[in-house]
Amino acid sequence: MRTSIATVCISGTLEEKMLACARAGFDGIEIFEQDLVVSPMSPEEVRALANRLGLTLDLYQPFRDFEGVDEALLPENLRRAEAKFELMNRLGIDTMLVCSNVATATVDDDAVAASQLRRLGEAAARHGVRIAYEALAWGRYVNTYRHAHRIVELADHPAVGTCLDSFHILSRGDDPSGIEDLLAEKIFFVQLADAPVLSMDILSWSRHYRVFPGQGGFDLAGFLAHLARAGYAGPVSLEIFNDTFRQSNVERTALDGLRSLLWLQDRAAARLAAGTVVPENGAAPRNDAGAAYPMHLASLPDVQAPTGFDFAEIRTDEPESVAQMLAQLGFGFRGQHRRKPVQLWTQGQARIVINGQRARGATPSISALGFQVAEPRRGVERAVQLRARAVSRHNTADEQELRGVNAPDGTEVFYCPATPRPAWMGEFGAAAPEGDEAAALIEAVDHVNLAQPWQAFDEAVLFYESALRLETRPATEVPSPLGLVRSQVMRTADGSIRLALNIVPQVLDGAGASARAYPEHVAFRTSDIFAVARRAKAAGMDFLPVPRNYYQDLAARFPLDEATIDTLRGLDLLYDRDEHGAFLHFYTETVGEMFLEVVQRDGGYDGYGAPNAPVRLAAQFERNRLRGGQRTTT
Amino acid sequence: MRTSIATVCISGTLEEKMLACARAGFDGIEIFEQDLVVSPMSPEEVRALANRLGLTLDLYQPFRDFEGVDEALLPENLRRAEAKFELMNRLGIDTMLVCSNVATATVDDDAVAASQLRRLGEAAARHGVRIAYEALAWGRYVNTYRHAHRIVELADHPAVGTCLDSFHILSRGDDPSGIEDLLAEKIFFVQLADAPVLSMDILSWSRHYRVFPGQGGFDLAGFLAHLARAGYAGPVSLEIFNDTFRQSNVERTALDGLRSLLWLQDRAAARLAAGTVVPENGAAPRNDAGAAYPMHLASLPDVQAPTGFDFAEIRTDEPESVAQMLAQLGFGFRGQHRRKPVQLWTQGQARIVINGQRARGATPSISALGFQVAEPRRGVERAVQLRARAVSRHNTADEQELRGVNAPDGTEVFYCPATPRPAWMGEFGAAAPEGDEAAALIEAVDHVNLAQPWQAFDEAVLFYESALRLETRPATEVPSPLGLVRSQVMRTADGSIRLALNIVPQVLDGAGASARAYPEHVAFRTSDIFAVARRAKAAGMDFLPVPRNYYQDLAARFPLDEATIDTLRGLDLLYDRDEHGAFLHFYTETVGEMFLEVVQRDGGYDGYGAPNAPVRLAAQFERNRLRGGQRTTT
Repeated sequence: MRTSIATVCISGTLEEKMLACARAGFDGIEIFEQDLVVSPMSPEEVRALANRLGLTLDLYQPFRDFEGVDEALLPENLRRAEAKFELMNRLGIDTMLVCSNVATATVDDDAVAASQLRRLGEAAARHGVRIAYEALAWGRYVNTYRHAHRIVELADHPAVGTCLDSFHILSRGDDPSGIEDLLAEKIFFVQLADAPVLSMDILSWSRHYRVFPGQGGFDLAGFLAHLARAGYAGPVSLEIFNDTFRQSNVERTALDGLRSLLWLQDRAAARLAAGTVVPENGAAPRNDAGAAYPMHLASLPDVQAPTGFDFAEIRTDEPESVAQMLAQLGFGFRGQHRRKPVQLWTQGQARIVINGQRARGATPSISALGFQVAEPRRGVERAVQLRARAVSRHNTADEQELRGVNAPDGTEVFYCPATPRPAWMGEFGAAAPEGDEAAALIEAVDHVNLAQPWQAFDEAVLFYESALRLETRPATEVPSPLGLVRSQVMRTADGSIRLALNIVPQVLDGAGASARAYPEHVAFRTSDIFAVARRAKAAGMDFLPVPRNYYQDLAARFPLDEATIDTLRGLDLLYDRDEHGAFLHFYTETVGEMFLEVVQRDGGYDGYGAPNAPVRLAAQFERNRLRGGQRTTT
Repeated sequence: MRTSIATVCISGTLEEKMLACARAGFDGIEIFEQDLVVSPMSPEEVRALANRLGLTLDLYQPFRDFEGVDEALLPENLRRAEAKFELMNRLGIDTMLVCSNVATATVDDDAVAASQLRRLGEAAARHGVRIAYEALAWGRYVNTYRHAHRIVELADHPAVGTCLDSFHILSRGDDPSGIEDLLAEKIFFVQLADAPVLSMDILSWSRHYRVFPGQGGFDLAGFLAHLARAGYAGPVSLEIFNDTFRQSNVERTALDGLRSLLWLQDRAAARLAAGTVVPENGAAPRNDAGAAYPMHLASLPDVQAPTGFDFAEIRTDEPESVAQMLAQLGFGFRGQHRRKPVQLWTQGQARIVINGQRARGATPSISALGFQVAEPRRGVERAVQLRARAVSRHNTADEQELRGVNAPDGTEVFYCPATPRPAWMGEFGAAAPEGDEAAALIEAVDHVNLAQPWQAFDEAVLFYESALRLETRPATEVPSPLGLVRSQVMRTADGSIRLALNIVPQVLDGAGASARAYPEHVAFRTSDIFAVARRAKAAGMDFLPVPRNYYQDLAARFPLDEATIDTLRGLDLLYDRDEHGAFLHFYTETVGEMFLEVVQRDGGYDGYGAPNAPVRLAAQFERNRLRGGQRTTT
């Protein structure tokens, strides 16, 4: 599949956009007119630069309000078009997007529109170019792809075809399966955009909220499969109007976009092979396995979802503060790495590595996660094909090789063999016998919570979904003293991996947030949280203090007896319950940019104590302020 | 009118919220439960703090999902309520908000709901408190204020009344005039929220997009007038769920909120006096002038809109760069201030003051605007009553006194007498005779463009609307290389004052913006822009360069002959046209954080050349980068 992207999707000057698209690995780009108009580069320079970068210039767009007009207006419209055809010749672009008329159409007659488009096609052909007519979802008379295609057939000119845009089709709830009935040679271009499911007017939705395929709610894998079955083999191009992309780092956004197309191809190919292109369709599935389509859909190395956390790594040059907390929670020190300033602490299947390498001046933070997978090498290969940057730990011949990639926020993600006793543990000197596991009250890592900058949130979700095959759960929003925190859980179906990605609010006019105001954390699972908490209290651990008001409210919300409330309060334990079961948990104080949590899940409770999150955030905000994270007034 | 605000509206801890509300001047607050639950302050401490600050605690909220339930659930619901009544006694709050049931109601029977609310009222009365029942717009069975009031009447208990919330009423398009038919003594509480007109689901709209009265699209002045006529005299409280307010500076937001209520009272009082409470109603207006209502609506000093710019001030410690541009545009140096390091430059009615006071290290920026008004003293008085901070220029006895206030972004706004030759000009030594006005091609300031941080945008619009009586025009959005710039024009009806407020995109992960990437500007009006541009070119002025691609596009868009295009290109002039007339303009290079523009309006053209703004923004972005405003990659 030839990948392309419209320059309007990303930030920067036209030159910067082209460099970023080439670097990300796109085959071509669409030139969005305004990007050219404001550029100091001449059309010839643009053409030469694209040539040097190996980018094809696939489309010039948009050309508006041409057809369906009073015949008196047509000469001026043709004059406008001729100027653009000349420009396209200078750019070396052979296809121009013509959007269905929004503003000037007054004749609701397909024959008139077709006749006018035919004359446009004749003019285009004289310049050796062609036009791709697209139905905008809000076009005055033409707003469905079937209608646009009908007019193209009526126009009956070799230089007149159609452009299909997933947003304009799916935003109206239109059925894309009809694409398979179109004439393949009349589909001149395809644009893809996803979008979150929002109930708002289509124009605003389209202009501000589009996202890359896989980041929204549209079934674009099915859409692409329809295109393949229709026999389309031209470029598939991203056309995303998104306020955030427009102001974000151009190279990151381009990479994110290409990743979305790679993953989309993989899913579309799988749908074709499984015969589930139209999953909701009652008809017998048509299995396309082995079918050869003109469009080649590249598949990714197939991998299974991870089965557990291998380890979590905390990087810091002050290991003592973390080590102390771990010891207070009952973790055992398993020794120092034979060669590096790295400590290993374990309890049950929970393994925490405290890494002092390249950590000068670094306060504790979560720097890497190990995921146990069936085929580590294949997993890394998949992630790298998805354009994640590979990382690997330097190792000597007799040491376990650890391979992984960087997540968008810089966290290192390692793909590790699935085993209850990882081989790399042998590289740590046995400081304490491993036999004291009888005292292990903590069983494993329950979940990990990572903070994400808001503008990179969709990118992070797409990464974990495509590279690690985690599933998304509905997002929740939690109030904090400095704004709403949006939390997106990504997990495996069986819950062996649970990752919560949090978007933290931005810092506004001295409202006082710092990185430490929204620390990340690792949560451990136990079956006896009272014993863990008592042991930690006895060991002098600093718990995050829970306000008394919380327990009064708890007593009002749940019919808990006074003794239970007293016990919870005495141990700074938080409580939640739903129809499936109960949840008990507590937090440590923050060290650096992280803290730890211990949780107990009773019955079928499958959540994370979301009703208690505001209590935690407020308490952390207070502690942060008392420690000197100031809050100034402007 | 007693002003109040819910603590959920603003950021920070409960203590910070209370301090900010008291400082802004609110009479009271509503305690939002979650703010108390997460607070380390005990209920007694909250009560004592409110007492010290002179704040009444007007409402405890919210209490959810009480009525319309199976009788088997009622004891547990009453138990929950009793716990809250006890808490309210400790807080010293006498009213609790009860929202209509969303989740647990199964009995759609007003008699059952009323009977259950009566029992709640009996329990409340035993604690000396009362309940205010509110219809949520998305309540399961009860979602209109009339329905809630009907149930309250059926409940027939002195401790059971209703709460009216403008959002829940107006978001549904419900007619608020029926408020006048309610029993005044049964209206226990009133909450106000405005909201922009959005077509989205009501719940999301309510939870994220509410704004202060006057910042959205609801007719809240009419709403308040209905309340006055209904005989309500209790607190009128802001309950605004807004993602931005939650993360903004708490003191600014509180002040903004109180300002909105002050201005609202003024407009409601005017509507009552004019008998236009229900403007769209065909019935004869009922003039309430002189009518005494239990609710006292405070009026502001009445003022007229300004009639022209008195001056624009540029603060810098490097006056030469600005002075040179002004000279090249044909401005005359009118001398140095007799006492201060301040220069005056004029041309026609355009007066530019270059102020070197308190300007150490300051690159040129727009620091103050003088507005000519009929009654300067009254204007300042109005602004100060609207809680704007007064500024005044130090002056000696024989100098003109300049009085004004700070706009939210810090720009100083001066109220000046309306005169073609301001008296303060006499304080500047006459460096050049004023007689060379024959050469004055520039007539006056056409408009001023100020950049606003996005989170303070609504606040700025409310300020200019309430304090200066400027009108808002529909906002436009303009793409720049680093994101969309939203532009909001505020002006007088006659166009003598035009102020464009721009929200500039945020700086995201090294995407390279700096303050200078979005400079502000002053635009001057001329009737012969060709002469101004030629004179400036001859004087060696640096124009902002316009790309050649722009002129090629212009030739495609408009039927302009080649000679005209050549002239425009030779002078770096931009062109626009609409159904009213044509617009010609050019920009200078940026100095510091500002630049200058010259415009010519032909025919009835009333816009600002918005189609050309992307060209300017891209050119400024390029120039900024070439000058070293770097763009890094993360």
